[in-house]
Amino acid sequence: MIAKLIEEIKKKDAPVVVGLDPQLKFLPQHLLEDAMRHHAETMYGDDELAGVAEAVFRFNKEIVDAVADLVPAVKPQVAMYEQFGIPGMAAYWRTVRYCQEKGLLVIGDVKRGDIGSTSEAYARAHLGSVTVNGHRCRAFHEDFATVNPYLGTDGIKPFIDVCNEEDRGIFVLVKTSNPSSGEFQDVKTEDGRPMYELVGEKVKEWGEQSMDGDYSNVGAVVGATYPEQAKRLRTLMPHTFILAPGYGAQGATAEDLSGFFNEDGLGAIVNSSRGIIAAYTKEKYARFGSEGFAEAARAAAIDMIEDLRGAIAKRAD
Amino acid sequence: MIAKLIEEIKKKDAPVVVGLDPQLKFLPQHLLEDAMRHHAETMYGDDELAGVAEAVFRFNKEIVDAVADLVPAVKPQVAMYEQFGIPGMAAYWRTVRYCQEKGLLVIGDVKRGDIGSTSEAYARAHLGSVTVNGHRCRAFHEDFATVNPYLGTDGIKPFIDVCNEEDRGIFVLVKTSNPSSGEFQDVKTEDGRPMYELVGEKVKEWGEQSMDGDYSNVGAVVGATYPEQAKRLRTLMPHTFILAPGYGAQGATAEDLSGFFNEDGLGAIVNSSRGIIAAYTKEKYARFGSEGFAEAARAAAIDMIEDLRGAIAKRAD
Repeated sequence: MIAKLIEEIKKKDAPVVVGLDPQLKFLPQHLLEDAMRHHAETMYGDDELAGVAEAVFRFNKEIVDAVADLVPAVKPQVAMYEQFGIPGMAAYWRTVRYCQEKGLLVIGDVKRGDIGSTSEAYARAHLGSVTVNGHRCRAFHEDFATVNPYLGTDGIKPFIDVCNEEDRGIFVLVKTSNPSSGEFQDVKTEDGRPMYELVGEKVKEWGEQSMDGDYSNVGAVVGATYPEQAKRLRTLMPHTFILAPGYGAQGATAEDLSGFFNEDGLGAIVNSSRGIIAAYTKEKYARFGSEGFAEAARAAAIDMIEDLRGAIAKRAD
Repeated sequence: MIAKLIEEIKKKDAPVVVGLDPQLKFLPQHLLEDAMRHHAETMYGDDELAGVAEAVFRFNKEIVDAVADLVPAVKPQVAMYEQFGIPGMAAYWRTVRYCQEKGLLVIGDVKRGDIGSTSEAYARAHLGSVTVNGHRCRAFHEDFATVNPYLGTDGIKPFIDVCNEEDRGIFVLVKTSNPSSGEFQDVKTEDGRPMYELVGEKVKEWGEQSMDGDYSNVGAVVGATYPEQAKRLRTLMPHTFILAPGYGAQGATAEDLSGFFNEDGLGAIVNSSRGIIAAYTKEKYARFGSEGFAEAARAAAIDMIEDLRGAIAKRAD
C-alpha cells in the first residue's frame, strides 16, 4: 500500500495529507443548523449527536470535494468522531467511504495498540476483515492506520500480518509532535541513546517484514516540530515512510520539514488539519467567509503544497 | 470514582473485574445463529455485522446477569466490538448501558491516547460529555477508561481534567502483561532504572491532581504476569489503584498477585476475560455445555474470587 501512496504523491506532486479533524467549533453555523434540523434522532444516546454527526459528514464532504484533485490522502482523526458516539462513528465510516470513492487514500488516525488477539481485532477493524458465517466483512476499512508502540512487538505484529494479507499500511508513533513528547520518548537509555531511537530501530526491523517497493508498509509518525530528531531518524530508517504532523497550527515550517525527505524527494508525507479545514477562520483566508469554508480549504492546501515543493527542491539541491 | 469502585469491591468482597471481550469464537453457535436470523441489516457495511453484533450483546447480557451480584465491575475490550464496525460499536454502547443499569462499574478498555484537543475528545467520548446546542451529550459514558502514556502529559492531562469535572477515573498503562512488554517498558534508562518506573512515577504525580479518598482516580495497568515489577511499583505508587490483567489465561496465579495489594487488602483489581466468559470451553466447566455458558461464567467467577481472597488473606498475615 505504501507504493500506492507514493504513486499518488508523485502523480499529484504533493506530499500532503489533509487532516479531517472536524472539531465542533470549526463547523460553520449554517451547516450545523441545517443538519440539526434534518437529523434529530438516534437510537444511541442524545439525539443532538445525530445532528452534529450529519454536520460533520457534510463538512468533510465539501472539503473533500474541494481538495480531492490536489492531495493524495486524507487523515481523519477518529477521536473527533468518537466524541459524538455511535452517530459520530457512523460519520467516520461514511467519511472513509466517501474519500475512497473520490480516489483518496485514507490514513485512519486511530493510534490503536494492544496485544495479541486484541491487537488483531483492531487491525481487522481498521485495515482487514472479519469472517462471519463464511462471509468476509469489513468494519472501517481505512488504507493506513496509526499505531502506538508502547506494548512492543506483540502489539505491532498482528497489524503487520493484516498489512501483508490485505496490502495495507501502518504508521507507528516514534517521536510525536507535542511539547511533552520528550517525557518518555527522549529519555536517555543506558547506552546514551534516546528512547525514540530504540523505537525507530524497531520500526525499521518490523518494516523489513512488509516491504512494498523501496519503502515499507510499516511507516513512522515523527512530528514536524522536531526537525533535528527527524534528521537522525531519517538516517536510521532509510526505507521507512514518515507521516509528519505539526505543520502550520503546531508551528512547524516547510524549512523544518526538509530533513524529513530522502534524496529522492520522497520518504515523508506532511499533515495539516486545522490549517486547511479551518482556514476560513484565519485572517489570511477570511475573504471566503464561513459559507466558503471549502474554497478556503482549497486555497490553503494549494499554499501548503507550494510551500513544501519549495522545501523539497531545496533539499534536492 | 475510585472511591466508588473501592466501596463496591468491599461490598462484594471481590477485587475482580470480568473482561467482556467477546471474540467470535467464544459465541455459542445457538446464540449466534438465532441473532443472525433476526438481525440481518445494517446501513454501515456488510449485513452480517448486524447479526454478529446482536449476538455479542446477547452473550454479554447473559454473562452480566449471571455475575452482577458477584463482582464490582466489568471491562469491555472495545477492539472486540470495533472489529464489527458500527453495529459492533453499538453493541459496545448497549453493553456499557446495560452493565451500568445492573449496578456494575464499567472500565472501558480503550487504551486511547493522543494530544491536546484530540485527547480531550477521547476523554469526552468515553468519560465526559460534549455540549451541542447547549445540550450536554454523552457518547459512550464508561466510568473508567484505560489510557496509553507514550505521548506524555499532553495526552493524560485532558483525561484528568474530565475525571475531575465528571468524577471518573483512568488506568494508565505502566507495565503491560504481554511477553514483549519489556522491549520498551523494561529498557534501562541512564540512571539504571527501567522505563516503566519512570512511567510509574509520572502516574503517581498525575494522580496527585485527582485524589478521591485514599486512592487517586488516576490508576495504573500492571500485568499480573510481572509480580516482581508490581511489588516495586506498589511501593513507588502507594496511592495508585492497579488494574491487573493476565490472571488465568495469560498464566498468572493468585500467588503472583499478592504483591499487588496494599496492607489494607486494597489497591488492585484483577481482570479475567477468557477465563470467565469462555469458561464453558474449558474442561473444568465443560459440564455446563455451550447452552450453559453464563452459568459456567458464574462458576468460574466464584472460583476466581475465592482464589484471590486466599491470596489477599495471606498478604495480610
